[in-house]
Formats: sequence, structure tokens, C-alpha cells
Amino acid sequence: MTPVEVLDFVAGVFPESDPEKTAIDELRDNYVRVRRTTDSRDLRPGGTISGPSMMALADNAMYIALLAMIGPVALAVTTNLNINFLRKPEPGDLIAEAQILKLGRRLAVGEVTIFSDGISEAVAHATLTYSIPPR
Amino acid sequence: MTPVEVLDFVAGVFPESDPEKTAIDELRDNYVRVRRTTDSRDLRPGGTISGPSMMALADNAMYIALLAMIGPVALAVTTNLNINFLRKPEPGDLIAEAQILKLGRRLAVGEVTIFSDGISEAVAHATLTYSIPPR
Amino acid sequence: MTPVEVLDFVAGVFPESDPEKTAIDELRDNYVRVRRTTDSRDLRPGGTISGPSMMALADNAMYIALLAMIGPVALAVTTNLNINFLRKPEPGDLIAEAQILKLGRRLAVGEVTIFSDGISEAVAHATLTYSIPPR
Amino acid sequence: MTPVEVLDFVAGVFPESDPEKTAIDELRDNYVRVRRTTDSRDLRPGGTISGPSMMALADNAMYIALLAMIGPVALAVTTNLNINFLRKPEPGDLIAEAQILKLGRRLAVGEVTIFSDGISEAVAHATLTYSIPPR
Repeated sequence: MTPVEVLDFVAGVFPESDPEKTAIDELRDNYVRVRRTTDSRDLRPGGTISGPSMMALADNAMYIALLAMIGPVALAVTTNLNINFLRKPEPGDLIAEAQILKLGRRLAVGEVTIFSDGISEAVAHATLTYSIPPR
Repeated sequence: MTPVEVLDFVAGVFPESDPEKTAIDELRDNYVRVRRTTDSRDLRPGGTISGPSMMALADNAMYIALLAMIGPVALAVTTNLNINFLRKPEPGDLIAEAQILKLGRRLAVGEVTIFSDGISEAVAHATLTYSIPPR
Repeated sequence: MTPVEVLDFVAGVFPESDPEKTAIDELRDNYVRVRRTTDSRDLRPGGTISGPSMMALADNAMYIALLAMIGPVALAVTTNLNINFLRKPEPGDLIAEAQILKLGRRLAVGEVTIFSDGISEAVAHATLTYSIPPR
Repeated sequence: MTPVEVLDFVAGVFPESDPEKTAIDELRDNYVRVRRTTDSRDLRPGGTISGPSMMALADNAMYIALLAMIGPVALAVTTNLNINFLRKPEPGDLIAEAQILKLGRRLAVGEVTIFSDGISEAVAHATLTYSIPPR
């Protein structure tokens, strides 16, 4: 699938992944880099970005990486997500780099590293497992 | 802190924890049961509730349990969240039961089990670690 | 399967689960309580028990709980283990309580709480996912 | 610390990390690559390597990477380990690449990818948190 096809499909099944807030910066086999703008609903007092916003982004980026590999499978579902919050994000765009570590017949495992745009040290790191329905 | 004090404080620091959607059903030492209404933003096609909504609820419930024990510490931050999605939630209220497993000087660890209201089998189970600032 | 049948089967596939060190104290649907003696190989300087010994016990206890439900399936494999170390174990026996949270057709998810024998506060808490081969 | 100093120190506090089985192939800031030979105690029927052996290696490799950065601190303890088992390891040496993602004052977070020697696809991927005592 192309970036546009993937985003269109994801917008239909991830209602919270506001397509106007999400862009695919780079997409290749087993990898995607997603950019997500943030707004006031993503913020915590002090200007940092909330944990749930980062968790939603990690889930979304992995789903995009997976769909680009296996095609539109709305029923692929997250079975496990583990996230470590490393540093306070700066206000501004978040960048999520998703790398698929294993794409099996029934399970896909990947890792997602989240950055504040323009800063080299990660703000969060997640690993996720998706269950893939029989095809 | 009383349930009302906790919810007021949380509403200030967790902007996404819409206080009109959240109620504390039971609060005692190291434990809280939280009820959260859901709306169209929480839904996936087919009527199930999105993973990010459940992750936000798990984080929120653990934070409530922790604040009730240590008092208003806005700077307590989630450092790790691990969640297993077990079954499709039904549309309707979610119930989160948070149990603190360890309340240390620097770290608190807890588990949160999430149910669809009225159904005994859990829809998700999370473990979380919070870092507690020096007091 | 009975406790004796389960332990005999596990001893064949988990070579490190020295059957002379492991006993089933209680076994019922979706639950097992396992007792494990420790020896010098499990210890750290200062007399505490090593993390890897507790991880192996968590894995072993969940496997026992699962086998007791689905029968001897050597090919059930751990796909994910998340463990939080809560307190220093005392020297002596470890008690692991494994509870299956979901027993699906393809995946089983459970939690294991580990105690030092006779002490009510847990020393570690793990969640595990097993992949179950087609039957 | 040099590789030899690190291994000597680790051998004293990780009794199960048999120093004759462990070698440091590469050590630089925030990164180590560890090689570990396996023997009959690490094996499962069918010749694959047991999960607990891989968990112990992940813990050990992260500890080595951390000690090389902060010096000999026996009391640095693992607080969380999350591991995904991706593929069956082949019999033979395991290679663990540990990368520190955050080295804070109180917590260090890293990821460890484990390979069968000579094979490019990972057999397991872990993330770990260590608590660092006040210095």
C-alpha cells in the first residue's frame, strides 16, 4: 500500500488518529516514520505531551507499518503494548519510528521509538504485538 | 484525599481525563475502582472501544490510586506501562480496578484490570510503574 | 492433568525446572500455586535470590497452569513476558501463584505473583503470553 | 571500566553468569555486544535454547552496558524486564546487543536484541529498567 492508501484506511478504523494530524514521512519494508502534530488536548500542564497521546501514536505507527506490509486488515488487533517513557517531550510535533521485528503468520512484533521533532534523544520507546487474523 | 479531592486534582493535570466522564466507585488503601463513560471518540468500527482509550484509563486509574495514597503530587510520572488486551470490550461504561503492588520511596508499581460494566471477564490488564519525585 | 502428570511432563520439556525443586501446592481451573526450593545457584551476594531465577519460575508456573488446562502440548511457547521486581526476596522457598486471565484458541495470557514463603508482600509480579499451536 | 574489569565485577555479583561462558565482543558508550556460549542446561528438547537462558542473558548484557557507564555499583537492580520471543534460536552461541536508551540519575532504560550467532534475524528483544542507587 502507498502512504496515501494506508492513511486513508487507518483514518477509517482508528477514529482517534485524526488524519489531518498525521503524516507519513517515510515508508519502506517493515519500517515507517510518522509525524504527528499535537494540539491542546495532547498537552499536560507545563506544556509537555501526555502519556496517552504517545501511547496512541505508538499504536498507530505500528499499525501503519503492519498494514503497509500485509494490506488492509482492519481486524489486526493489538494484543500487547509495553512502553517506557524516557524524557519529557517538548511541545510540537512528535516523530514515531516503527520497525517490525517479526512478521509471522499469526503475530507481528515491532518496536516504536518516539522523538520530539528535531531532538535526537528519544522521549519514549514501545514494543507492540499485533494478532493477525487468518487470511 | 477523598474521591472528590482526587478527581478535582486529576482533572487539573490530566486534561484528557474528562471529569464528567470519570467517577470513583470505590476508594481504599492501595485500591481504587474507577468508572468511565465512553463516547463516540472512544469507539472503533463495529462498536468496540479503542485500545488508546483503555490505555488512558489504565494510566488514569493508577494515578488516582497513587494520589489517594501520597497526596497531590502532579509530578509523579508514568515510567512504564505494559498492557495486554484480552477481549473486545462491549460498548458502554468501562470499569478499571487499580491495585498498588508496591509503594516505595521512589517507585510505585500497580496493576489495573479493565472490565466492561457488568461482565466478569476482563477486557484488558495493565501493569504500570510511576516515578515519585523526592518529597 | 493431575499435579503429578503435569510435573512429569514439565520436567521433560523444561530441563532447568529441576523437578526435585518444584512442587504444586494447589491446582484448580486457571490457577496454580507452585513452591520452589532455591539453592546456591539461585543466590546473589547478600543472600537474595537472582532475577533470572524468578523469571524462570514465573515462566514455569504459567506453563504449569496452562498445561493443566489444555493437556500436554510441548509446543506451547512463551511469546511475551513482562516482570516487575518489587522487593528483595528472602532466602528460602519461593511461592508462585499463576492465574490465567485469558485462554483463547491461539493465545493464553496470565499473571504470576511471586512471594517469599511466609511473607504476604509480593517480591515480583509478571504477566505472560503463550502461543498455543493449532490442535 | 574495561571489558575485563566489567566481566570480573559481574562474575562476582551474577553468580549464574558463568564468566567462562561470557565474552564482550564490543564495548562502547551506552552499548555492548556480548557473546554467550550455551550448554546442555540451556537447551530444550528439539535443540532450541530455553527462554530463561535468554532472559538471563538480556539481564546480564544490560547490566554490563550499565556498569561500563557508571562503574561498579553492585546494588543497581533490575526493576522491569519485558521480553518478546521472536524466533527459535539455533543451538550455538547467542549474541546480545544492549543499547542504553536513557541513563538518568535514578533509572536507566535499555533494549537488548538477541541473535543466534551468524543469523541476522533476532530471536528475542527485551527492554529493561534498572534502578540506580544514590551515589
